[in-house]
This record gives sequence, C-alpha cells and structure tokens, in this order.
Amino acid sequence: MKPDSIYDDSLVIDGLNVSNWDSRAVFDSLKNGRVTAINATTAVWEGYRETLDNTAAWLRRFRDRPDSLTQVRSAGDILRAKEDGRVGVVLGWQNASPIESRLDRLELFHGLGVRIIQITYNERNLIGNGCFERVDDGLSSFGVDAVREMNRLGILIDLSHVGDRTTLEAIDLSDDPVACTHANARPFFDHVRNKTGEALKLLAEKGGVVGANGFPPFLRNEWQSTLSDYVDAIDDLVERVGIDHVGIGTDFTQDQSRDFFKWLLSRQGTIPQEEWLASFPDPVTHPSGMETPDKLSNVAAELKGRGYRDQDVSKILGENWLRLFRQVWRDHARRG
Amino acid sequence: MKPDSIYDDSLVIDGLNVSNWDSRAVFDSLKNGRVTAINATTAVWEGYRETLDNTAAWLRRFRDRPDSLTQVRSAGDILRAKEDGRVGVVLGWQNASPIESRLDRLELFHGLGVRIIQITYNERNLIGNGCFERVDDGLSSFGVDAVREMNRLGILIDLSHVGDRTTLEAIDLSDDPVACTHANARPFFDHVRNKTGEALKLLAEKGGVVGANGFPPFLRNEWQSTLSDYVDAIDDLVERVGIDHVGIGTDFTQDQSRDFFKWLLSRQGTIPQEEWLASFPDPVTHPSGMETPDKLSNVAAELKGRGYRDQDVSKILGENWLRLFRQVWRDHARRG
Repeated sequence: MKPDSIYDDSLVIDGLNVSNWDSRAVFDSLKNGRVTAINATTAVWEGYRETLDNTAAWLRRFRDRPDSLTQVRSAGDILRAKEDGRVGVVLGWQNASPIESRLDRLELFHGLGVRIIQITYNERNLIGNGCFERVDDGLSSFGVDAVREMNRLGILIDLSHVGDRTTLEAIDLSDDPVACTHANARPFFDHVRNKTGEALKLLAEKGGVVGANGFPPFLRNEWQSTLSDYVDAIDDLVERVGIDHVGIGTDFTQDQSRDFFKWLLSRQGTIPQEEWLASFPDPVTHPSGMETPDKLSNVAAELKGRGYRDQDVSKILGENWLRLFRQVWRDHARRG
Repeated sequence: MKPDSIYDDSLVIDGLNVSNWDSRAVFDSLKNGRVTAINATTAVWEGYRETLDNTAAWLRRFRDRPDSLTQVRSAGDILRAKEDGRVGVVLGWQNASPIESRLDRLELFHGLGVRIIQITYNERNLIGNGCFERVDDGLSSFGVDAVREMNRLGILIDLSHVGDRTTLEAIDLSDDPVACTHANARPFFDHVRNKTGEALKLLAEKGGVVGANGFPPFLRNEWQSTLSDYVDAIDDLVERVGIDHVGIGTDFTQDQSRDFFKWLLSRQGTIPQEEWLASFPDPVTHPSGMETPDKLSNVAAELKGRGYRDQDVSKILGENWLRLFRQVWRDHARRG
C-alpha cells in the first residue's frame, strides 16, 4: 500500500495539540491533514472559572463548524469522526489546576467531556510536582485521592510534564493504564521534559501509551530538527517500549503568539521567565516536513520508508491511542 | 509585683487565635482578658475571593466596635492599642492559598493589612508542603519566589503547620527572622504538629520567635491538659531556644462549631477526615485554667509561681512578639 493510502485508511490521533483555537487556519490544517482526533488543550495555567469559559468557547466552536468538527467523549465518537471525515476533539488539560482544591469538580468537568488530564504542568500544584520543579517528592495526599477519582470517572491520566517521582508514583498508583501524551525518552535526548527509561518501561508494562513529541527542544537537533528527527524519536520509543505503546503527540502550537509562549513558560503562569523565553525562536516552528497537521501524512511516509509494516504504521498513527482510550474511558466500540 | 500587676503592665500578644469572629463572646473575652493584640486567622483553606470577603468582614468589625477593637498594621499600632485599652487585631493567614498563583496579590493583601502568613496549612500548596503531608521535599520554585516577596514586603512568615523540610528551607532562605506562631517542640511532645528541635534552634538563631501552643492535642496530657501542661510547654521552649525567642500562641478556637473543625481537618478543606474529627471531643475545649482569653492572666501567675522574673514574664507575654514584628514589619516604634 502507498504511504498515502495507509495514512488515509488509518485513524490519525494526535496525543497533544495546543494550538490557537481562535485561528481558522488551525482547523483548516487539521481538516486538510485528515486528522481523526486530537487531544486539544483547554487548560494549562487556568483556574476553575477560566477553564469553564474555555470549555464554553469549545461548545461554540462545535456549533459553528458542525461539518468539520465534533466533540469526542468516547472511543465510538472517534470512529464516527473518521467515518464522517470530521476532526474529533477531545477536551484535555495540561494541568489539574482548574479543579483547585475540589475533587468533585473532576466529575463536573467529566460531564462536560474532559477525558484527559495531566497531573501538573512543569511545576507544583496541589496534586504533584512538575518536571521543572526544583524538587519532586511525588504525589500529595490530595493527589493520591485525585488519581483514585480520575480512575473512578475514567479520565486518562497524562504524565508528560510531570516530575520523575510523581510520574512513577502515578503510574504505580493508577488502576488504569496512563499516558504520556507528548514526550520522548530521556535516554534518546537528555531533556527534563523527556521521560526516564524507567518511567516509560513501567508505563508500557501497565498498558499505557507514549506519544512521540515533535516540539523541537525535545528532539536531537532541537530548533534545527526535521521530520526525520521526529521519526527517530518514534523509532527510539518503539524499540524501548514496543510497537503497541507508541503514538504521536505532536505538541503543535500553531498560530500561537509570543505572548502565549511567555505565559506558557512563566512560573505558575504568572512570573515570566525571560531567559527561557529568549531561547525560543520567533516564530516558533515545528520540524521541517511536519510544520502543521496538514503535513502529518509525511510521518506515515517516513515510517513506511523505514520499513514499518502497514499495521504498525496504523498503530502509531492512532490505533494505540484508540485502544488506550477504549480501556480508560470504558467504551469498547469497534470500527465498522 | 503581683502576677496581676505584671500581666496588666505587660503587652499581651497572642501569636494565634482562630476563634469564631461572628461570636460576640469572643470579643468580650479578649477585652476582659486585657489582650493587647492577636494574630487573627482570616484564611485557612480559602481562596482569593473568599479571603477578600473575610477581610471586608473585619473592616466592618473594626467599624462596629471602635471602642474595643483596632486593626494592627504596625508595631506602633500595638503600643497604641495597649494605651487605649483596645484589642489590636493583626490580620493573618494560616495558608498562602488566597494568593493562588499570583505573587502580586501579596502586595495587595499587605495593603489591606495582612502582616503574618503561614506558608501552608497541613498539606501541600503551590509554595510548600504541610506537616501532615505524606511527603515533604521543601519549597517549590514558586515558593522560593514567595518567600522573597514576603521579605520584600515585610510580611512575617509563619511555619507552624508547615512540613519539616519546607520549614528548614524557609528559615534558611528568609532574610528576615520567621515565626512559629503556635507550635511546641516535638522532643517535648511527639506530634507532627510540634516542631523539630533542629527547626526551633535555627529559627531562634535567626532571631525568630515560637509561640507556645495551647491546643490540647499538642500538649503532654492531650485532651486532659491543664494550664500547667501549657506552661510546661513554655518552660521547655525557654530552655530550648532561650527566653528571648518564646511567646504565646494559644490557638484559641472559641465558639467554633463542629462544622468548623470538620472543615479545618478536611483534606484541602474539601475532603472530610471523619476518623480524625472523631478523635476531637465535642465541644473542643482548651486546657482547664486557660479555656478562653479572659483567663490568660493565669499564665502569668503560673510563670511567676515557677520563678520567672517579671521581665521574662513580659517577654513571653508579648515583648518578644513585639520585637519580631518591629523587625519584620520595619516599624521601630517604642513604648511611651
């Protein structure tokens, strides 16, 4: 089969997209890229009220683009998105900050469709410590309760930006398999945002999935990275944890402004880290050959070119994510 | 001098009072006890909005009781309260939770008169870990920034309910001396809420003050404790850190309801800990002989009875707190 045919026949599920949702080009690119579904970030540093507003804004987007967008609340919704040729959007968080100190808000947001929650973003929150924290001694007592509640509700736990100790504890404690929706292996490229070999091994043993991250600083050639560097990261993960545990997690930040990155990199979303920001080019671009979602078929072509079998390409493009979603979201819908 | 005369001549400053501020009896008792000033808790688990409302409620109380209450924003205000025979109220927090993720709120609340802030209450927050947390690896990166900002503003850092590691780091990092407004020594009575000998030693070396805590679970005879047990805790602290570093910090919870304790003991203020609550008698009472602030002269009498010199009794009753407030609040007003 030609790479394009494999790509078109596959579910294409992106483990993490944090683009500018007010940009029309973002949705055009997802549509042109025939992307089946994305984990769309709806909270990074936001609290309760702001995240409710962000969620309301998504309801409007679904209403405004009924022919091209659809909200994903189940694995079945992803299969229907594929059939309809629409882009499925999973509402996901990169930080549990929106619940503040109230676990019952998890059920409220689950009711609104939030299906993936990262424990914390880069730093400390009430639940755990992030990968850039000065220290990480693991989950708090409240964090232990939060993991149990996410398990009860069927919310996928994401550990991409989470500190090493908190990561290991969450994998261990969770009854369900967990994800790193957008992270590479630290032994592949030594960056605190890439996960330790130990964490990835344990995650896979429990049935989890890691989404290879295309954000340049986490690839070997950093801001000079190309599609080939990204597929190197996939190769590494496949070798490390096996073909059934690797997906894509592009970390696309399409059409985001400089102010967005300033906010993203700031401590707790409020204290700018100018030096860090200065290390980011303006504009920030993804690796050449996969600048935006409409280029994602290149990933399939590159995998095919490296000798991956069709079924393995499909696993990486989306089947592994679907399997994990089915299990954690407790919806065992099958295709066709 | 008779004990009563010493008491009346001394500044009487209570390092921590967390009573029901809607109870008239609380203010009557403070007035009858000739208490010069209290660190009145205005936030435990509250966030930004609720704490602003709590603060507004205090402004109303000051307005409603101009003859008996006065807000303390400086050491000079405490001296004036003594002269006027009014009860001075320092607005203080037992948790930095009201600032949420915004350090600039510290300056805002300082402008409203908040002068004492405990890093965290029992558990984890964005700044540090509490004494009941399952783990404590110290201050977060944001917490380091927060300590510096409190130093800049002249807000006294309180470490009473703070975890061991976070406590040591905060003492070490702070440019100003710090306080444990209401805590005893763990070697005196082994309870996680009492502070380690190491922490108290370092606190005193940096010029800080520890307020002997009268809440029964932290005294040797727990719920059967009497005034004598409380003064034992003072004796122990004086021996341990020296006469210049010990104050009182009664932890009075006068007229608080069962629901209040349920809230206080709950995880992050939202998840009840029924077993823990069940270990508290109903009603909760302070040691016999010091049930309420109007009995505080008994502490002076007991100290006097144990051979403390008048000047040392005065140091414990209030002079040590005043010295620390002067230094941290940068107001070097002197008496008379």
